[in-house]
Amino acid sequence: MGDQFIEDILNKLQNGEITREKALLKLKKQPFEDIGFAKIDHHRKLRQGYPEVIYGAGKTVEQIIEIISVMINNQEKVILITRIGQEVADQIREKYQIQYDPMSRIGIIGAFQSNRGHGSIVVVSGGTSDMPVAEEAAITAEAFGNHVIRLYDVGVAGLHRLLAHLDEIMSAKVIIAVAGMEGAIASVVGGLVDCPVIAVPTSVGYGASFNGLAALLSMLNSCASGVCVVNIDNGFGAGYTASMINQR
Amino acid sequence: MGDQFIEDILNKLQNGEITREKALLKLKKQPFEDIGFAKIDHHRKLRQGYPEVIYGAGKTVEQIIEIISVMINNQEKVILITRIGQEVADQIREKYQIQYDPMSRIGIIGAFQSNRGHGSIVVVSGGTSDMPVAEEAAITAEAFGNHVIRLYDVGVAGLHRLLAHLDEIMSAKVIIAVAGMEGAIASVVGGLVDCPVIAVPTSVGYGASFNGLAALLSMLNSCASGVCVVNIDNGFGAGYTASMINQR
Amino acid sequence: MGDQFIEDILNKLQNGEITREKALLKLKKQPFEDIGFAKIDHHRKLRQGYPEVIYGAGKTVEQIIEIISVMINNQEKVILITRIGQEVADQIREKYQIQYDPMSRIGIIGAFQSNRGHGSIVVVSGGTSDMPVAEEAAITAEAFGNHVIRLYDVGVAGLHRLLAHLDEIMSAKVIIAVAGMEGAIASVVGGLVDCPVIAVPTSVGYGASFNGLAALLSMLNSCASGVCVVNIDNGFGAGYTASMINQR
Amino acid sequence: MGDQFIEDILNKLQNGEITREKALLKLKKQPFEDIGFAKIDHHRKLRQGYPEVIYGAGKTVEQIIEIISVMINNQEKVILITRIGQEVADQIREKYQIQYDPMSRIGIIGAFQSNRGHGSIVVVSGGTSDMPVAEEAAITAEAFGNHVIRLYDVGVAGLHRLLAHLDEIMSAKVIIAVAGMEGAIASVVGGLVDCPVIAVPTSVGYGASFNGLAALLSMLNSCASGVCVVNIDNGFGAGYTASMINQR
Amino acid sequence: MGDQFIEDILNKLQNGEITREKALLKLKKQPFEDIGFAKIDHHRKLRQGYPEVIYGAGKTVEQIIEIISVMINNQEKVILITRIGQEVADQIREKYQIQYDPMSRIGIIGAFQSNRGHGSIVVVSGGTSDMPVAEEAAITAEAFGNHVIRLYDVGVAGLHRLLAHLDEIMSAKVIIAVAGMEGAIASVVGGLVDCPVIAVPTSVGYGASFNGLAALLSMLNSCASGVCVVNIDNGFGAGYTASMINQR
Amino acid sequence: MGDQFIEDILNKLQNGEITREKALLKLKKQPFEDIGFAKIDHHRKLRQGYPEVIYGAGKTVEQIIEIISVMINNQEKVILITRIGQEVADQIREKYQIQYDPMSRIGIIGAFQSNRGHGSIVVVSGGTSDMPVAEEAAITAEAFGNHVIRLYDVGVAGLHRLLAHLDEIMSAKVIIAVAGMEGAIASVVGGLVDCPVIAVPTSVGYGASFNGLAALLSMLNSCASGVCVVNIDNGFGAGYTASMINQR
Amino acid sequence: MGDQFIEDILNKLQNGEITREKALLKLKKQPFEDIGFAKIDHHRKLRQGYPEVIYGAGKTVEQIIEIISVMINNQEKVILITRIGQEVADQIREKYQIQYDPMSRIGIIGAFQSNRGHGSIVVVSGGTSDMPVAEEAAITAEAFGNHVIRLYDVGVAGLHRLLAHLDEIMSAKVIIAVAGMEGAIASVVGGLVDCPVIAVPTSVGYGASFNGLAALLSMLNSCASGVCVVNIDNGFGAGYTASMINQR
Amino acid sequence: MGDQFIEDILNKLQNGEITREKALLKLKKQPFEDIGFAKIDHHRKLRQGYPEVIYGAGKTVEQIIEIISVMINNQEKVILITRIGQEVADQIREKYQIQYDPMSRIGIIGAFQSNRGHGSIVVVSGGTSDMPVAEEAAITAEAFGNHVIRLYDVGVAGLHRLLAHLDEIMSAKVIIAVAGMEGAIASVVGGLVDCPVIAVPTSVGYGASFNGLAALLSMLNSCASGVCVVNIDNGFGAGYTASMINQR
Repeated sequence: MGDQFIEDILNKLQNGEITREKALLKLKKQPFEDIGFAKIDHHRKLRQGYPEVIYGAGKTVEQIIEIISVMINNQEKVILITRIGQEVADQIREKYQIQYDPMSRIGIIGAFQSNRGHGSIVVVSGGTSDMPVAEEAAITAEAFGNHVIRLYDVGVAGLHRLLAHLDEIMSAKVIIAVAGMEGAIASVVGGLVDCPVIAVPTSVGYGASFNGLAALLSMLNSCASGVCVVNIDNGFGAGYTASMINQR
Repeated sequence: MGDQFIEDILNKLQNGEITREKALLKLKKQPFEDIGFAKIDHHRKLRQGYPEVIYGAGKTVEQIIEIISVMINNQEKVILITRIGQEVADQIREKYQIQYDPMSRIGIIGAFQSNRGHGSIVVVSGGTSDMPVAEEAAITAEAFGNHVIRLYDVGVAGLHRLLAHLDEIMSAKVIIAVAGMEGAIASVVGGLVDCPVIAVPTSVGYGASFNGLAALLSMLNSCASGVCVVNIDNGFGAGYTASMINQR
Repeated sequence: MGDQFIEDILNKLQNGEITREKALLKLKKQPFEDIGFAKIDHHRKLRQGYPEVIYGAGKTVEQIIEIISVMINNQEKVILITRIGQEVADQIREKYQIQYDPMSRIGIIGAFQSNRGHGSIVVVSGGTSDMPVAEEAAITAEAFGNHVIRLYDVGVAGLHRLLAHLDEIMSAKVIIAVAGMEGAIASVVGGLVDCPVIAVPTSVGYGASFNGLAALLSMLNSCASGVCVVNIDNGFGAGYTASMINQR
Repeated sequence: MGDQFIEDILNKLQNGEITREKALLKLKKQPFEDIGFAKIDHHRKLRQGYPEVIYGAGKTVEQIIEIISVMINNQEKVILITRIGQEVADQIREKYQIQYDPMSRIGIIGAFQSNRGHGSIVVVSGGTSDMPVAEEAAITAEAFGNHVIRLYDVGVAGLHRLLAHLDEIMSAKVIIAVAGMEGAIASVVGGLVDCPVIAVPTSVGYGASFNGLAALLSMLNSCASGVCVVNIDNGFGAGYTASMINQR
Repeated sequence: MGDQFIEDILNKLQNGEITREKALLKLKKQPFEDIGFAKIDHHRKLRQGYPEVIYGAGKTVEQIIEIISVMINNQEKVILITRIGQEVADQIREKYQIQYDPMSRIGIIGAFQSNRGHGSIVVVSGGTSDMPVAEEAAITAEAFGNHVIRLYDVGVAGLHRLLAHLDEIMSAKVIIAVAGMEGAIASVVGGLVDCPVIAVPTSVGYGASFNGLAALLSMLNSCASGVCVVNIDNGFGAGYTASMINQR
Repeated sequence: MGDQFIEDILNKLQNGEITREKALLKLKKQPFEDIGFAKIDHHRKLRQGYPEVIYGAGKTVEQIIEIISVMINNQEKVILITRIGQEVADQIREKYQIQYDPMSRIGIIGAFQSNRGHGSIVVVSGGTSDMPVAEEAAITAEAFGNHVIRLYDVGVAGLHRLLAHLDEIMSAKVIIAVAGMEGAIASVVGGLVDCPVIAVPTSVGYGASFNGLAALLSMLNSCASGVCVVNIDNGFGAGYTASMINQR
Repeated sequence: MGDQFIEDILNKLQNGEITREKALLKLKKQPFEDIGFAKIDHHRKLRQGYPEVIYGAGKTVEQIIEIISVMINNQEKVILITRIGQEVADQIREKYQIQYDPMSRIGIIGAFQSNRGHGSIVVVSGGTSDMPVAEEAAITAEAFGNHVIRLYDVGVAGLHRLLAHLDEIMSAKVIIAVAGMEGAIASVVGGLVDCPVIAVPTSVGYGASFNGLAALLSMLNSCASGVCVVNIDNGFGAGYTASMINQR
Repeated sequence: MGDQFIEDILNKLQNGEITREKALLKLKKQPFEDIGFAKIDHHRKLRQGYPEVIYGAGKTVEQIIEIISVMINNQEKVILITRIGQEVADQIREKYQIQYDPMSRIGIIGAFQSNRGHGSIVVVSGGTSDMPVAEEAAITAEAFGNHVIRLYDVGVAGLHRLLAHLDEIMSAKVIIAVAGMEGAIASVVGGLVDCPVIAVPTSVGYGASFNGLAALLSMLNSCASGVCVVNIDNGFGAGYTASMINQR
């Protein structure tokens, strides 16, 4: 609670505009609505000017639709629903207009934000199999109002592919580096640029990749400065943080 | 190699200003000096306008002093040497003016950069034992020209301590959250703000902290958006990345 | 074997009320009935005054029904069957009156115990996906005769949600904190109260959550005193232990 | 902040007893004193009626002594300092009267609390090498005003030793089970009693004990209900939680 | 190759009974038949007087039937096929008389060996879910000609169940202790007897049992002497080794 | 970029054969074709004279067929597609002539390379279940133009089987040792020969094999010199590297 | 408690030889002496006819000497003290006649048992560095009255060394296989013999041996039947169990 | 045993040149000398034409000197002793002429082999701290008669440093890639060349490098074909295997 908020209430109390009971209540009442299984913070969006996000994994279609309905009643313009399948999107579509992207598994209700970033977010990825995570990052960043450049299949084992795009890479305001297996692209890219690199390990690989552990450890140990890491397969987190940085 | 650089050479070649051999050489010659054990990139600093950094751990005093001497011959104004002990600093002092901070174990030759950031970097830490890592982050950020606010010993088990500093926390341009043990502060802070949070797990703890693994995993799994993570005890990396973000 | 029991037998032997063979037998005979695959301790319930519990996972419906039938023959009034699916419950219902809760996957034969606790058990949980484990804890505690207050979806990334319920949290006699991902709620709650907190890590999450390992380690390393931990997803264990504490 | 506290301030404000500025300040001012490296919560003790605790590991003697001095200026009667060596205790003794126990590595300033518990806390331990952790638990529990019964060296490989103390074990209000190696004692004891068992894995062992991991996992998987677990070697946490339970 | 075998050949060579070529061949020719995917050692059985064993997991029915047919052509009397499902057994039955036990998932062609052991092998197990592994051990031991006593569902959380069978346990020549979860039964039994105990961790459990890792580590760290361990769920290995010991 | 290539361009520029713009472009243009999801390096094959390889796992049939079509348009003669199922091969066959081997799960378009190696590559494997990985290695090596000798089912538990093939083993130019479970064959073979041994751990096994981790660690710790290791189940990598060595 | 023991007491009670109080006491009184830190079971030795063993690691010299003194007062003839250094042995020697072996770090008071085994125990080990563990096993077995054959430095990388001792190996009644690094010797030996093999992984190695984990996993996954495993570096456990088997 | 060897003996036996006893002995006698703690294979060197190698770690100076003396008596010309400190080298020097290199910690008695390789072995390493391992590899390769090119401090974070040496890298016959931290250099180099790459992870790093585990996993998951891996810090193994490949 900011000083201003408290002061206003005290002010009104002294001026007799509100009763003591009302003041007490206002100081404690919370800006959320209880819908049984998910209490949604309406104020958050106002503070941040961003779309609302629903993490779809582990929620039933019914739960998702109920959350959407509460949000829309609260004048939300844009809602991002991550990690849902085609069939879930189809069921939502029966009630709300939703665009669904099967690669990233993201559904969007409403329009993308207009560009509010200072520069470009470049998403580089190692291989074809990393594309779902890379797209989750890219579409998230776009939905939050950023210009995104995609450089896919530029893994370090074919360095010339990556270096062919040096101009785009070096002009980025923030880079998202997505890779499974040995995750080396984060270090290589981190050494080429002087902007922050958000590394996203993916669970792509087999055997000693241990579902992304190899890429995760590799990225955490990057010898390049300016590299930080999010959870395995967390494309959304990378896109969201990159947006924050790009819109500073 | 940028387009301009190549074009200049081609230009000069066509104009007869340089010979073909010279052009070939120029296109291949590298901007570094070989000193046997460490090839230093003089150009990097020019591009970035930042101090040079020497990672002191695992290097002998002789190696460190030789690197410093090469750097100084190359007109470096500010040199940061991380992870060195008092005795190493004392040996360097015999040759160069160095300020040494025993808490962060950082030595600095030359003056700090003047403030070039857009806002403040807030460093929060969980407990007294996390201070060396927190200070490594804070001093790095200061050396790279940022205003730093320190909020130490505000662990989540005493939430009122953290909440007492809400104003500072919410005004930050980027936050560095340093914690060992369960590393929960990254999530709590991440939920309070809408700026990027760089989480630094520390090796502080015992038993099932497994030298920082518990804090690392906890931070990677943060339920707050906008949190990214660096290696265990990597205060320097956090300070450096925060500076990059703050100076975007 | 308590002193009284042994003494009684010796008494009867000396008094000639029982033969030596009978005494020997009584000293060795065990209070359970062999049904081939599960020897059930009838005396346990008498000692504890609690419902019988059948851990349903890994047992066939036939095995579960046979155990129920033995228990009912032994005058058990209340039987809790955990970790069973709807279809198993349906098959049991053909023979016995059973209430089944699909969220917690608990089936109950007979009535809940009346309230025998000294205070309230508060179950807090981080997110919607943690509800099955939270409900396993809550229903177990209720079945054993405790008043339970549920505070769900109060994850630390939205601290105001948790703090809105400070009164309920601080009035608890024992708290069960259920969370996956980074499991930070145990520390935050533990720092707010002066009652025991039983932390239940859940397998909710992905990537570096490693099926609940991140939350488990986080909770074991809690910087708040008074926090102890049960196995990942072990809602029953938490509810049972909380009941023990509440009924001391 | 409780309702009463807020209401009092609003009351006084309306009654003109305090100014608006004062009210605002009171609503925000925090009950702790900043001593640079450790902000101590004076109010905590009042709320809980317990001794203050300083976790000594990773703190310098100077830091510890400064914390003690602040506490004593705040009328603390009893201070527990855990995980300190003899030499640290000796340095503290030059300023304050301190009792030091080399086995548990606990120092105490002031007198133990008088017995405030409802029953006994029984500390059982597996082997001689587990004694330092067991004593940390036992002395903590005593310092917080509990009657403690020690049953050491009653490891499960010599079951008759444990069973010889059945009476004491079964009369406990809460049991602390301390063991390294395979940590089986928690399950065995948990199966004998109907009170909560706090299991403390220790780092005693070698090879595949992996510094207490084997005991930790074993205890988390206890087939006995009513067992919960604290961090490896966390005798203090066990003693503190047991005290909470015993004084419910 | 034993001395006797070599000497016989040399003997015959000197006596002119065989040619040099034949001697060379005999010294090199191997006692197995190549059937493309599995070279079977006919001599092994002769040396050991034991049934042949086929590890069924990961083999197709066709491969298993071909191995059986080669064995039967080589006068094998008894063949044990482990880790096969009912449907595999049914397909084998179309060609060969096979007894199949669905609990242990073992199929047997031919008759069990008559008792050749010196004493009894006692198989103890913790819970109902451990029975498949326990039966794999028990049936293996029986097939190799041992008298087996089964004591199931005698987990340490109900110690009286185990102690009720002290006589059988203490009369064993070798004990197989089968348990998942915390695997404590190996230590408890190991402390009661002075015969070897072969501990078999099972993958029964959830969460921090990590598919049997907890039980495995627990058993490896047993504080009881005379306990050795086989792989998780390796009932066959335990039964086979116990047979070796019992028939010494 | 080789010296010759740069020099040629400079030459042509000076001779006026190409414009400055053309020279600039040539120095930057990359030798690959962008097909949206996979940029294929046509030059690689020319440099190496090897078949093209498509890693099929995690790619859709459509993606695979599109890559094949681009390759064939570029005059590729031989294409190896690894890790595809029968149904994928069948769909490819509708468009292209493909041989499919269900054991190794490799499809081949075009003819095998003729023998270009200096000697034989011997593939040894421990058990029947390791055959898919062993065949992936063997067929890869054959496809790249090597003579391959297969020695399967020669696990170390039946040493005579392995030793029966000493001549073939000792005549190898490079050996590929494939094994799951304890992976001991790499060390045993490595001690018998003086050629490089490429060890391939497989995920064959159960329990404490942890999906090939046991074999992987075992092989990395081989006490025999000259053993190096590839990823778990990576038959292709072993066959490819062996081919490189054999064709040096 | 055996039937006979209980019956005797009941007998005496009925015959009036003892009072009821005495009977009750006898049924509960334990056969050990409390010396504060270690309760020693005098009866164990009688039951087993074996030397007493003190695990020296983690005990002070004072504690060890006190245990010895209690044992000697109880007519113990032979005492084995494992894991003690030379200096500890020297301090014990001031009070008791002790033989100390610096390689195995075992001290012995009294004479070895005369040979009571049925055959030989063969101890094989991989390398020079495994000798301390191998000797701990060998001397333990000798102290318990077994004939021991040592075959050291016969690692699988030099198979001819091992095969040179085939006669000794194949004549063993039980084999102890000691190895660090990849631990392959257990499988190789297990495949050669038809007696039980007790595998002892050692912490010898570096890097991915992870302090013996590689050898431990390798041995647990042995493809040879009849191999069981003890803890890393647990030579004593192997020697003790081998003795049990040899003296069956 | 080769055919020729057996045939010779049979020949002599038939010709009466040797007795049957002698033949038997010859067929079994092994080509090594027993020196109590280390049986040395004299024949190995003859077969391989390489220097003898003593792994110094974990051996006493006395043991090392005794092994050297046996080797020299057997006409060994060159002896490599790895992983010894300066003080051990000094003690050896009192008896034998030894060159000692403190960086690689290798001592050499006798002269290096003359160049017998087909091409160059290139050793690339990431950072200054990796030099000891890189030098162990380089000196081993030189001692075995190979031409070695060292490219140190060419980590992927400064790609231009690596690319400046493209000519040397692409001309290599085999490459040894040494790196700690994220170990990305193996993949980058592997993608540039078409010769085998032996990757050596080092324990250089901190935190989540877990003593080289991060680099090890990264290298095992290399997306470049033709990369195989040796144990963490195993410079010797890499140099030895590279020599084998170079001298094919």
